[in-house]
Amino acid sequence: MSLDVASTTKRKETPMVIVMQAHATEEELAAVIGRIETLGLQGHVSSGTERTIVGVIGDERPVDPEVFEVLPGVERVVRILHPFKLASRDFHPEDRVIELSNGARIGGGAVAVMAGPCAVESREQLEVTAEAVAAAGVKILRGGAFKPRTSPYSFQGMGEKGLLLLREVADRLGMAVVTEVVSPRDVPLVAEQADLLQIGARNMANYTLLSAAGKAGKPVLLKRGLGSTIDELLQAAEYILSSGNPHVALCERGIRTFETSTRFTLDINAVPVLKGLSSLPVIVDPSHATGRAELVKPVALAGVAAGADGLLIEVHPNPAAALSDGPQSLTPKAFFELMRDVRGVAKVLGRDAG
Amino acid sequence: MSLDVASTTKRKETPMVIVMQAHATEEELAAVIGRIETLGLQGHVSSGTERTIVGVIGDERPVDPEVFEVLPGVERVVRILHPFKLASRDFHPEDRVIELSNGARIGGGAVAVMAGPCAVESREQLEVTAEAVAAAGVKILRGGAFKPRTSPYSFQGMGEKGLLLLREVADRLGMAVVTEVVSPRDVPLVAEQADLLQIGARNMANYTLLSAAGKAGKPVLLKRGLGSTIDELLQAAEYILSSGNPHVALCERGIRTFETSTRFTLDINAVPVLKGLSSLPVIVDPSHATGRAELVKPVALAGVAAGADGLLIEVHPNPAAALSDGPQSLTPKAFFELMRDVRGVAKVLGRDAG
Amino acid sequence: MSLDVASTTKRKETPMVIVMQAHATEEELAAVIGRIETLGLQGHVSSGTERTIVGVIGDERPVDPEVFEVLPGVERVVRILHPFKLASRDFHPEDRVIELSNGARIGGGAVAVMAGPCAVESREQLEVTAEAVAAAGVKILRGGAFKPRTSPYSFQGMGEKGLLLLREVADRLGMAVVTEVVSPRDVPLVAEQADLLQIGARNMANYTLLSAAGKAGKPVLLKRGLGSTIDELLQAAEYILSSGNPHVALCERGIRTFETSTRFTLDINAVPVLKGLSSLPVIVDPSHATGRAELVKPVALAGVAAGADGLLIEVHPNPAAALSDGPQSLTPKAFFELMRDVRGVAKVLGRDAG
Amino acid sequence: MSLDVASTTKRKETPMVIVMQAHATEEELAAVIGRIETLGLQGHVSSGTERTIVGVIGDERPVDPEVFEVLPGVERVVRILHPFKLASRDFHPEDRVIELSNGARIGGGAVAVMAGPCAVESREQLEVTAEAVAAAGVKILRGGAFKPRTSPYSFQGMGEKGLLLLREVADRLGMAVVTEVVSPRDVPLVAEQADLLQIGARNMANYTLLSAAGKAGKPVLLKRGLGSTIDELLQAAEYILSSGNPHVALCERGIRTFETSTRFTLDINAVPVLKGLSSLPVIVDPSHATGRAELVKPVALAGVAAGADGLLIEVHPNPAAALSDGPQSLTPKAFFELMRDVRGVAKVLGRDAG
Repeated sequence: MSLDVASTTKRKETPMVIVMQAHATEEELAAVIGRIETLGLQGHVSSGTERTIVGVIGDERPVDPEVFEVLPGVERVVRILHPFKLASRDFHPEDRVIELSNGARIGGGAVAVMAGPCAVESREQLEVTAEAVAAAGVKILRGGAFKPRTSPYSFQGMGEKGLLLLREVADRLGMAVVTEVVSPRDVPLVAEQADLLQIGARNMANYTLLSAAGKAGKPVLLKRGLGSTIDELLQAAEYILSSGNPHVALCERGIRTFETSTRFTLDINAVPVLKGLSSLPVIVDPSHATGRAELVKPVALAGVAAGADGLLIEVHPNPAAALSDGPQSLTPKAFFELMRDVRGVAKVLGRDAG
Repeated sequence: MSLDVASTTKRKETPMVIVMQAHATEEELAAVIGRIETLGLQGHVSSGTERTIVGVIGDERPVDPEVFEVLPGVERVVRILHPFKLASRDFHPEDRVIELSNGARIGGGAVAVMAGPCAVESREQLEVTAEAVAAAGVKILRGGAFKPRTSPYSFQGMGEKGLLLLREVADRLGMAVVTEVVSPRDVPLVAEQADLLQIGARNMANYTLLSAAGKAGKPVLLKRGLGSTIDELLQAAEYILSSGNPHVALCERGIRTFETSTRFTLDINAVPVLKGLSSLPVIVDPSHATGRAELVKPVALAGVAAGADGLLIEVHPNPAAALSDGPQSLTPKAFFELMRDVRGVAKVLGRDAG
Repeated sequence: MSLDVASTTKRKETPMVIVMQAHATEEELAAVIGRIETLGLQGHVSSGTERTIVGVIGDERPVDPEVFEVLPGVERVVRILHPFKLASRDFHPEDRVIELSNGARIGGGAVAVMAGPCAVESREQLEVTAEAVAAAGVKILRGGAFKPRTSPYSFQGMGEKGLLLLREVADRLGMAVVTEVVSPRDVPLVAEQADLLQIGARNMANYTLLSAAGKAGKPVLLKRGLGSTIDELLQAAEYILSSGNPHVALCERGIRTFETSTRFTLDINAVPVLKGLSSLPVIVDPSHATGRAELVKPVALAGVAAGADGLLIEVHPNPAAALSDGPQSLTPKAFFELMRDVRGVAKVLGRDAG
Repeated sequence: MSLDVASTTKRKETPMVIVMQAHATEEELAAVIGRIETLGLQGHVSSGTERTIVGVIGDERPVDPEVFEVLPGVERVVRILHPFKLASRDFHPEDRVIELSNGARIGGGAVAVMAGPCAVESREQLEVTAEAVAAAGVKILRGGAFKPRTSPYSFQGMGEKGLLLLREVADRLGMAVVTEVVSPRDVPLVAEQADLLQIGARNMANYTLLSAAGKAGKPVLLKRGLGSTIDELLQAAEYILSSGNPHVALCERGIRTFETSTRFTLDINAVPVLKGLSSLPVIVDPSHATGRAELVKPVALAGVAAGADGLLIEVHPNPAAALSDGPQSLTPKAFFELMRDVRGVAKVLGRDAG
């Protein structure tokens, strides 16, 4: 895949429209046109009786609307083109597929399930869980070694030791590893062991981390921030893509809303919206989106039915003893039942699951 | 079904817990206990070094937490029991099923699809649409005669004339009718023609309308307010149930969030949450929740996969000419494809659809 | 004031811009232009390499963007003009002022304080409260006679009896009355007794009620819905204004957000935004926006500092015994202190308060 | 100030209440009690007819509610104590005051204004701005050297060069410097030059950065995440405080809501709520909360009226030419007028401003 940005910047487009205030003067309009031309663009004026609008025409480089919003006489600036490019389906019409070293694929029709414990707690806990999910047909093992926790008094993860355990257990079972990285400093270490670097929701706008992950040579699973729009998620992906790494999967894991009966609200609409705007694979995380084990299966099935390319599921051999996210972890038995129905729904919609 | 409220008010429960402020005085605590006893309840004090909490014990009538929140020395009051009762699964453990006069059923395992135009615009438009959805196996015809519109300059519906058209066309096709009622004054008129009275999202907290609908002798389809919590939806249902009408279906149709790429955000988590809290049927409306036709199918399938008892879908023979909600209406052809996949997903999960 | 709508519909404007999809065909573009012309408008095409945009030009009647969104090849439609007109400052540049029969004025520079109990509970409770707020300089008495309550088991108000009490007590003290109306049926009754009809947040989009209130011949205090945007609030005002009633005051009373430490989140930004978009007076309700008495004063002062034309404050002689909203009601003493600081802030910013 | 955590962990408290499911068994209750005792805590059972609740009593260490939520038979767990301690007013009743090296103070009654450009763009731009705000009485210069930008194509700041310019210009004018740090790696560099380290909203939950900033030996200005609750802001502060750094100021800068007419919604309620829960100083940022220059003054005055300890304001000598945040930057002239009114409001409420 070529990331030749230059080749995409030559087309004349209308990236935005400037709406002048009702009583903007001729001088103000002239100043807006002047600013447009200074930037190497052209203005296309359309006057009504009170409102004048100016289409900005030029190559489609993402000029910041602020540049015009601040000018006297401007009421507002409306984007016509999205503020991301490499992440867009316009730029790369075919679905992107991520292939991991063990042959697991994310994107391209099948439902890729990634499962495992929220946090790696011990060799035994990890082995039991990994064996159970592998037996259910899962090829990608998830597990947290570095944990971002809301409270400084919560369990913060096993760190490097947990990472090495993940690698060892996954290798023995022929699985790939996805695990979170929380600091640019840890990127080389995590990239050495993991097949897929997870950027968590709380770090979606940690641009230093995004850039570092983009340069690490491994695919990235980017979770949507809990207060972030779909547009911002795609701009965060753009940070990674523009670092030269085309292998990014997006993850909807629930957003903040006024509803309090679940920890977050899974934005199910986001699945088909993302699939339309972008060719990057889209993963759904029903464990974090609901925070309650009994809701994981229905919401996971909803994600698959809506077209998600994969699922991220927390499983624990004994949720009641988990050091983190116990309430939303499935037992191996419940996970088996989930997988059976995921396969059923995928198949009836003409897809595979594994 | 018996709605004998009295029989449910005799049990001794702990409906709430009062948390005293860190520095509350003995006198303040005594006043809280006094108020509890005045209300015929008992207080159960549990003291820590700084914080004292008081469990309020008595019958489970919904005492308003405000009664205690306002007392000096009280930090906050935590509800233990939900503020609704007749709507709860605790009160009525078995799934409730609504049977309409044409034999259509809502609840009880199958997926009940209600489809038709957003607004009734003409006899021809209604007939073409109704015939198409009937041919797809739909038994409940939806259509708006009285339209609540955000702008006073938008089409407000055909009113009574549209209502009579709905009835006539549905009768000819053996279908039931669901249509919205927007004013208490219109309830008798609408109840005479419709099989299912729809209360729209903007009227979910119009308690005058809820009470009137509750007394009209027809089942009610109650849509969640776009800024309303699940708890408030169930309290709104409680208004209807406590008017003596046990036939209420709930509808998730999207809530207001910060995401702007879709008109609303369908709260998919709400489907299993509502099914857990309540035995009332739960319907999903993907047309309003997304506002875009190309998103209706994936989100409808998600609703079914999450366990919804039914769907509410807008169909128009020529969406480009619709007077209302054209952008979110399916063509008959797209609706057929939706139904095929709805049936597939329902069946693989052990359910029927019709 | 003239509400001659006709005189405002002759100007040629660009109410919206249509963005075509990247791969829209010539035929699709032609169909869009055709539809524009059918509606008596003109299309102004501006083509980029992939994206074509069409400015819609004509008189500024609020054509619904849906009409175009639904056409094949259209990506989205962007409004350039706001969807309200009579409510806009463009239409009526000078601040509107509402004068009540007792001489109290809302709008026009001074801070109009409306205070009283959440609900009228008894003659004594009302008299004590009214005398206290009158003594603090308040000229508009608030009090609920018809109460919209979330739970059917909560106190629903004294109804007509409470309304007559309000009128009687207000008359004796030379005060005006503002009180809520919850049903179109009650509008004539309430309009006969009250000086200002309040439409509550839960009824902001109850268009039947808005129209009835608009025709009742009394000024209206319209509260923003808890899930409603500023644009929707102004469209709701447009319902009343287009019914022929120019005397509308808007009220910001808190919106639903993910923050749970207060009942709602007062949108303080909305105060200057509304003052910019519209010439209608803007009132702030810190009692409902916070739900906690200790937050009422700081938030009320914030409202005045942000430019609000008035405040709506709940006062109760004994909040601990209130039947409704006790936790957010001020004692007369606390209200006196609030008024002292409101006057101070208003004066230092060149305004009066009363 | 002593941060002796040990001394605060000895008290017996009720940090949470466990609500059992309606049909929980005796064995499930026994298992809950067992788990409570395993953790060195005590359970205090209170049984109703169907619901049993268990108060958890022990020292007030923040045990994670998850530990109990996950147990069979548990419906939910309600926190009684807040999940933060060092940040709480209970722990440190007196207002905390931060003193900077140039004598500027944050907290303790006066209104501390921090002003300057969004981004340092050049020596001249910084000098002109700094001189203007110094002339208005400002003692703390703000300016961004490392900029977190949503788009990878936006100006990313001057980096170290900008930092040194800030220090130099501030020193010449006797000002202190507040500037953002976006990566743990940059903390030592920024801490060497700045008097106050700013953690931006997008990094509020970047716990690696919080811990690094906590150990840098400089006070920290912590901005609330745009999707973060007040509780989470205080837990983020707890990360810094528990690193041994008691000098933290909190900043409300707007949250994500459904309202789109402003970039964010300033949560004005949060000001008095934070002042009640915590003794840390609270700053308001009206520039980012509104995104529009004409709204900055009314919202800034609202913040002061609500009790904020300070303001963070963007000023630019020529906003139309700013490389970042131009639309929300004040001109020096508008800033002077803002300061005049800030002083007026502060004074009338018995406070100073500088």
